[in-house]
Amino acid sequence: MTGTLYGVGVGPGDPDLMTVLADRLIRNARVIAYPAPENGASFARSIARNSIQPETVEIPIRIPMQVDRFPVQEIYDEASQKVSEHLLQGDDVVALCQGDPFFYGSFMYLFERLKDRFSVRLVPGVSSMTACAAAALRPLCAQSESLFVLPATLADAELSDRMSRGGALAIVKVGRHLPRIRELLRRLGRESGAVFVAHASLPGQTVAPLADAPEAAPYFSMILVPGIDPYAAS
Amino acid sequence: MTGTLYGVGVGPGDPDLMTVLADRLIRNARVIAYPAPENGASFARSIARNSIQPETVEIPIRIPMQVDRFPVQEIYDEASQKVSEHLLQGDDVVALCQGDPFFYGSFMYLFERLKDRFSVRLVPGVSSMTACAAAALRPLCAQSESLFVLPATLADAELSDRMSRGGALAIVKVGRHLPRIRELLRRLGRESGAVFVAHASLPGQTVAPLADAPEAAPYFSMILVPGIDPYAAS
Repeated sequence: MTGTLYGVGVGPGDPDLMTVLADRLIRNARVIAYPAPENGASFARSIARNSIQPETVEIPIRIPMQVDRFPVQEIYDEASQKVSEHLLQGDDVVALCQGDPFFYGSFMYLFERLKDRFSVRLVPGVSSMTACAAAALRPLCAQSESLFVLPATLADAELSDRMSRGGALAIVKVGRHLPRIRELLRRLGRESGAVFVAHASLPGQTVAPLADAPEAAPYFSMILVPGIDPYAAS
Repeated sequence: MTGTLYGVGVGPGDPDLMTVLADRLIRNARVIAYPAPENGASFARSIARNSIQPETVEIPIRIPMQVDRFPVQEIYDEASQKVSEHLLQGDDVVALCQGDPFFYGSFMYLFERLKDRFSVRLVPGVSSMTACAAAALRPLCAQSESLFVLPATLADAELSDRMSRGGALAIVKVGRHLPRIRELLRRLGRESGAVFVAHASLPGQTVAPLADAPEAAPYFSMILVPGIDPYAAS
């Protein structure tokens, strides 16, 4: 009997926003895996730290900061190999994923490599998006409103096209794109009411009207923009 | 000192998908409130049932099945009045919300009425959307992909416009709109790869290719459609 690979969302940052199931799976895990920077601490692991037992085997998946496509693929080939050795021995492996594993999560890399050979189960987590809305006390979407989730890394033309359609917006992966996104929203008349959120649910949490957002935004930051007529159907 | 109103997401259905914080707040609550049908059991309460203590005061907010706008507004006026009486006595009130309170949640009705008079805190929950993706073992969005969340209640023209833009789609509130949505996706060449999910994380969970979805879809069902080139940037 081979083991099962669990893709487990550990939520946006506050350990209390892990699910009861994630907490239990991590406490009982013989093997865990998680993404980590080349040097230093893993964010996903830091969220789960109080649930990890001393005897649990840990597989950090270390990703250099600046890489093009191929090294990342090689790193995940190697990580999948390590994970599969444990699965073949009959041990389950719990892969920790910040936020939700299937909402812009790096768990996709392990999943694609292992889903056809092993049993995989997903445990959804609180996403950064709903955590940012909670932090900002700003409803994401209501009633018959659309919500467009847009990575800030998209080109101006694509962003403008989607931003001009009236639905509520959640712009993710803001980071260094902040000034550009702000300018696009301003041109479309949608800056008013937009809110910037960084490090939602963590001690360093920042919530500010977009006009007052800090110039140096972290990668894990988000801009929420209300729909043009959010309560139209209420 | 007045109390605090907590809007607490209890997740998609499996009690184990409540957050550690939601579980703790509900266990310690003196007063809880939750939406319920006119007759019968509340879904939000049923998710939290094992955390609710016998001495906790319960405020069910009973919504008739078929109502136009005004009775719902009146029902929430009355519920807000009841909730505010407890807050004014200095008790916190924990409002239970299935999924996440700010992702198409009915908590909005209490929030709008009470946010300017009382301290309000939001506890995000696992949304039905990420739970459906987990149930279907289908990533929602990756890398530089957009995700469009579209209520099935929108008109054909609006849905077609958004569906034709290439991003991944999560179509919510499917219910009786299933045949219409399927036809729209078919016409746009996006039916292939689409998956239908109902009752994610619950014992009655259904996952099926859209072509094989049951004709009578429940209101709480969803269609997930992969982006046209989901791993373009991976």
